[in-house]
Amino acid sequence: MAGNTLGNIFRVTTWGESHGDAIGCVIDGCPAGIRLSRQHIKSELDRDVPYPLLTRRVEENNFQILSGVFEGYTIGTPISIIVRNSNVESEKYKKIMHTPRPGHADLTYRMKYGHIDWRGGSRASGRTWVSTIAAGAVAKRICLLKKIAIKSTMLELGGVKVDNNNLEQIIEKLAEQSKRDSDTTGGIIEIQIQNLPSGLGAPAFNRFQADLGHAILNIPGIKTFELGDGLDSARMRASEFNDPIVTQGGSVTTSSNRAGGVLGGITYGPPVVFRFAVKPTPSILIAQKSVDLRTMKNTKMATEGRFDANYTPRVLVVAEAVSAIVCADHLMLSGYVPQDSIIPRKDRLRYDFMNRRA
Amino acid sequence: MAGNTLGNIFRVTTWGESHGDAIGCVIDGCPAGIRLSRQHIKSELDRDVPYPLLTRRVEENNFQILSGVFEGYTIGTPISIIVRNSNVESEKYKKIMHTPRPGHADLTYRMKYGHIDWRGGSRASGRTWVSTIAAGAVAKRICLLKKIAIKSTMLELGGVKVDNNNLEQIIEKLAEQSKRDSDTTGGIIEIQIQNLPSGLGAPAFNRFQADLGHAILNIPGIKTFELGDGLDSARMRASEFNDPIVTQGGSVTTSSNRAGGVLGGITYGPPVVFRFAVKPTPSILIAQKSVDLRTMKNTKMATEGRFDANYTPRVLVVAEAVSAIVCADHLMLSGYVPQDSIIPRKDRLRYDFMNRRA
Amino acid sequence: MAGNTLGNIFRVTTWGESHGDAIGCVIDGCPAGIRLSRQHIKSELDRDVPYPLLTRRVEENNFQILSGVFEGYTIGTPISIIVRNSNVESEKYKKIMHTPRPGHADLTYRMKYGHIDWRGGSRASGRTWVSTIAAGAVAKRICLLKKIAIKSTMLELGGVKVDNNNLEQIIEKLAEQSKRDSDTTGGIIEIQIQNLPSGLGAPAFNRFQADLGHAILNIPGIKTFELGDGLDSARMRASEFNDPIVTQGGSVTTSSNRAGGVLGGITYGPPVVFRFAVKPTPSILIAQKSVDLRTMKNTKMATEGRFDANYTPRVLVVAEAVSAIVCADHLMLSGYVPQDSIIPRKDRLRYDFMNRRA
Amino acid sequence: MAGNTLGNIFRVTTWGESHGDAIGCVIDGCPAGIRLSRQHIKSELDRDVPYPLLTRRVEENNFQILSGVFEGYTIGTPISIIVRNSNVESEKYKKIMHTPRPGHADLTYRMKYGHIDWRGGSRASGRTWVSTIAAGAVAKRICLLKKIAIKSTMLELGGVKVDNNNLEQIIEKLAEQSKRDSDTTGGIIEIQIQNLPSGLGAPAFNRFQADLGHAILNIPGIKTFELGDGLDSARMRASEFNDPIVTQGGSVTTSSNRAGGVLGGITYGPPVVFRFAVKPTPSILIAQKSVDLRTMKNTKMATEGRFDANYTPRVLVVAEAVSAIVCADHLMLSGYVPQDSIIPRKDRLRYDFMNRRA
Repeated sequence: MAGNTLGNIFRVTTWGESHGDAIGCVIDGCPAGIRLSRQHIKSELDRDVPYPLLTRRVEENNFQILSGVFEGYTIGTPISIIVRNSNVESEKYKKIMHTPRPGHADLTYRMKYGHIDWRGGSRASGRTWVSTIAAGAVAKRICLLKKIAIKSTMLELGGVKVDNNNLEQIIEKLAEQSKRDSDTTGGIIEIQIQNLPSGLGAPAFNRFQADLGHAILNIPGIKTFELGDGLDSARMRASEFNDPIVTQGGSVTTSSNRAGGVLGGITYGPPVVFRFAVKPTPSILIAQKSVDLRTMKNTKMATEGRFDANYTPRVLVVAEAVSAIVCADHLMLSGYVPQDSIIPRKDRLRYDFMNRRA
Repeated sequence: MAGNTLGNIFRVTTWGESHGDAIGCVIDGCPAGIRLSRQHIKSELDRDVPYPLLTRRVEENNFQILSGVFEGYTIGTPISIIVRNSNVESEKYKKIMHTPRPGHADLTYRMKYGHIDWRGGSRASGRTWVSTIAAGAVAKRICLLKKIAIKSTMLELGGVKVDNNNLEQIIEKLAEQSKRDSDTTGGIIEIQIQNLPSGLGAPAFNRFQADLGHAILNIPGIKTFELGDGLDSARMRASEFNDPIVTQGGSVTTSSNRAGGVLGGITYGPPVVFRFAVKPTPSILIAQKSVDLRTMKNTKMATEGRFDANYTPRVLVVAEAVSAIVCADHLMLSGYVPQDSIIPRKDRLRYDFMNRRA
Repeated sequence: MAGNTLGNIFRVTTWGESHGDAIGCVIDGCPAGIRLSRQHIKSELDRDVPYPLLTRRVEENNFQILSGVFEGYTIGTPISIIVRNSNVESEKYKKIMHTPRPGHADLTYRMKYGHIDWRGGSRASGRTWVSTIAAGAVAKRICLLKKIAIKSTMLELGGVKVDNNNLEQIIEKLAEQSKRDSDTTGGIIEIQIQNLPSGLGAPAFNRFQADLGHAILNIPGIKTFELGDGLDSARMRASEFNDPIVTQGGSVTTSSNRAGGVLGGITYGPPVVFRFAVKPTPSILIAQKSVDLRTMKNTKMATEGRFDANYTPRVLVVAEAVSAIVCADHLMLSGYVPQDSIIPRKDRLRYDFMNRRA
Repeated sequence: MAGNTLGNIFRVTTWGESHGDAIGCVIDGCPAGIRLSRQHIKSELDRDVPYPLLTRRVEENNFQILSGVFEGYTIGTPISIIVRNSNVESEKYKKIMHTPRPGHADLTYRMKYGHIDWRGGSRASGRTWVSTIAAGAVAKRICLLKKIAIKSTMLELGGVKVDNNNLEQIIEKLAEQSKRDSDTTGGIIEIQIQNLPSGLGAPAFNRFQADLGHAILNIPGIKTFELGDGLDSARMRASEFNDPIVTQGGSVTTSSNRAGGVLGGITYGPPVVFRFAVKPTPSILIAQKSVDLRTMKNTKMATEGRFDANYTPRVLVVAEAVSAIVCADHLMLSGYVPQDSIIPRKDRLRYDFMNRRA
């Protein structure tokens, strides 16, 4: 089965295994005339490892934009981005190729595919989300044209509430703890999408939050999605939970945002707010129960590859990327065609017959 | 934009407004030779209102299977099911057509579409999920052939934990309370999908839980999705959260199921377990803040239409339906073609040349 | 497998068998605010049998619009149209249920599905294109807003060239001949799509002509598609075949239209012109070779059901319908959102906040 | 709009411009366990220029398989193939960037996209079909497992009928002629797809021939598609055109194949046979009418880039590739999962729990 494409009109297909030659993405459906430079991609990829203290595999993301961009602007054809893999240590995985790592996809890949690439997590590796980040960088360019802003925050790390002053300390502590205990921790992330135009989303099976939830739940390590005050809603009465409808600056909106920015699956102005938990990185140095698939005997195994003490900060970047992709796709599903007016006059070739364009 | 179709190969398209002539669904991609009777659909539709005490609009679901079935078995063509609307009280909605109901889609439909059907919630009404239940009944037939069982439970109703002995009492109490206070409550549902074959789901953007989450988050009133012990995962260490891999009955599985039945987005045997909150029915008799859209003045309004004191029990039925649709679709995406061997020999026309079939 | 949907954004799903209770379609993705009355559908359905002389089964198309339209305008939700079957003579088919009719789908349906509805051609019957005509009527409303005109002509009937003066005579003659010989004939149709905006179509796998060709080749009885002077192109030199590029009325176009209105798969102003052959109606009263599938013995059979002496005039109406669907879909793929300005002021509810719409 | 993907389950997305860094494809949905080597791709790419005499731009196709394959077998993840561009002569195109070449997409790309890559035909160049050939090579591996054979023949070249003995002479003559006259010619190709299992295709909008026609009509330079004796069908009677149904070797088939291997859009055994015309390569050295888009004045222009005297032999290779993709996709749509039994025992990791696989 296929299953590596996200989006309906703005379509991102990612490819690549953790220890293969390269990983990458093809973005089909990006309109022509959007300014897009190497730097736009690079600045997002550089965020891939925000806290090196928490991460063992750090590599420069050596990437190329191979198509779809000419003289600094998109040309409407598929944008192909490739990121070379390097700094791989495949040998370590040879020893554990017959003992699937708990919490990993090793077991299920074998069940589904029979023949697998056993090196470094293959397509299930966190490494592969670099492709998604690159595609998200392109989606963010489109979001920017509508002034859509995607703001993400870590609410919790390793069970500790994050506030403005203690983030660096928590990270140091978690890194230390992880090193000491050979164990890992998780966290909670909140994202706010601001300045969304109203009218995005469709009533039945493309509710805006459902497409967002789908994208978020496809990120490795994410098992929850909560829109607005969703969890509390189960214990509130409608008179408490319903957001009152009011006028504001000549427009209609709600005075609270418990619903999380959508009504009936459709946006209407307030920020779309959602939250999700990040599980602890599954790879740990502690011996865990597994099975030797050759002998079908129970055994113990410890991961030797590199791992992240806590990958919440990295998940945050991927979550922003998929959120941007969902926004770009829904903008275009709603008939929004990003304007090419940002192309400087001298660079454009606009003729009178263009007026006949659809 | 389109947006009324669920599924990739087993595709369900629903249509219809709450106070229109009828609602219905078209199921495209159901293989031939599946036994399907009126009764299979009816027995699911009859579950639509499990506790009439909690529901004001109760109507017999007067439905017809119009195509795709012949002499009790599917024939591989689209199955069209129509359910006539009746017992509608549209007049009540006329008075509030310019004052959008808080917690409803009234406001956003107007923003998105400009021209709307203001009667009874239109396409956003809970009424429309009857189409989804009908489609789910067909999907359950396919699930049954693989012995997949979808078990749902209400964990909480109106903030009260449900156990085996107190359900009827809670319902009575909530109905009473709602009548007294003119207010409504929500709940929490858990679903277990048992006997799923391993290998369903795809690594990148069709993870089994993401497609499930997408389906669940498209149900009116649902704003959360949690797979396995997802929420706890943020505060656990990997050594606690990872499910140990063990042998069992000659096969490989895990000794716990915190991950909720998937690894890397792919099923492997244990039940897929998930939970979600149901918000309180938004329609209440209490006056709430709204805006008169003609004058753009703040005002107050109370819903006069009928509403449910708590629609958790009804959401449960819809949630089972969409879960069955996701399972049927993923079965078929994985190349599973339901066998037509259930057709009695005498009803079949199987000739030697059939062996040439793909 | 699914396979009953046409279009990407403007999506038409048809359903129904020839001798079932009803046939119909669901149109998902039609924007809100398009004027749509019963009469718009009826006037197209009334064209279904343009020359009763050529057709045996004539029935009034007793249809209903069940959803998606309110007070004469679309509301953005799926439009469900149902057409009741009547005037069916199923008994005649019982006798031939084991001897597949040559030129029909009887044999292949049995091979693919095993269990089939053997009455009247089932889903392969020409009857089922009534659903497509109804959907095309909606697509034509969108085309009209962009002044796109779809003009079709019969170039040949039964091997005789049609000109303005001889059409009625040819039809009479073919009807007579068919009655006398118990045989049927075919024809050739040309369609011109005028006033298409430039820029429709996409370079690689959604070339405008490929999507058109796909739609046309899905009509029962059609096995060819030719764009512009396509057949001649194989025997011409580029200097003859290339359409010279010239200015015209301040715009750029070509002075001839051998390419048939597209370059690189994209429209640019000139009409899109294409042609296709219609095969003779396969049902005839002459005994033909077939096989008794119970005994697997060679035998002879003659169709007893009603049939058309020549169904070219009816195919023309279906071909217009699918052409309109492809145009509406490509318009919307290119970001064209049909304006709702045709809604009379008094019927609209447009508020200031609408300006915030995407 | 997107539009660079072919296929529903076996999905091929191509990307790349003629004079960009590289071109390539991503094949999503190829099952695991299919033997696939560099050589399988290379042997197809080597066919790209079958008659160098007819082609000016000849380059070694320097390609890499970047993902989806491990130790010689597919692993079920997307297969990314990249082909570096070289031997580009972009300067020549600078002179003509404002005067669109007749018969090319220069004009329509400008109309659609505004900002374009004016070098060498960009995404509309014949160069880009190398990606499609590479994807077709993978599809052919799947076809091979079902023994499906795709046989193509040139029926005509430059208006001359090709037979077994005269091909080389015709090619020499056309090359000479083209050099002398600075002009180009076209041709006619026939393809036979043999050993297709019965039951491929779906009744309404995925008829096997319609999906084939769609794929063929997306090849640059192709404007016609004819299945079986399609063109003749318009002038025949049903008693002549209908293929008689007969027994053969214990199976049921037809004694002739005028329908071209499908009935009702579904295959049943006989080869699927189709034909299409190839237009003369549009680039010629003869001065042709065009418009200077800066001044909007009529002018004349001659192409300076390299071109093919006749690209029919190259189109043949692409047509085989897209045919293979359609076959692989329809095989999988029909629930065929290519067996991985070709993996040598020692390379496989098959455990007992595999039996639980869907």
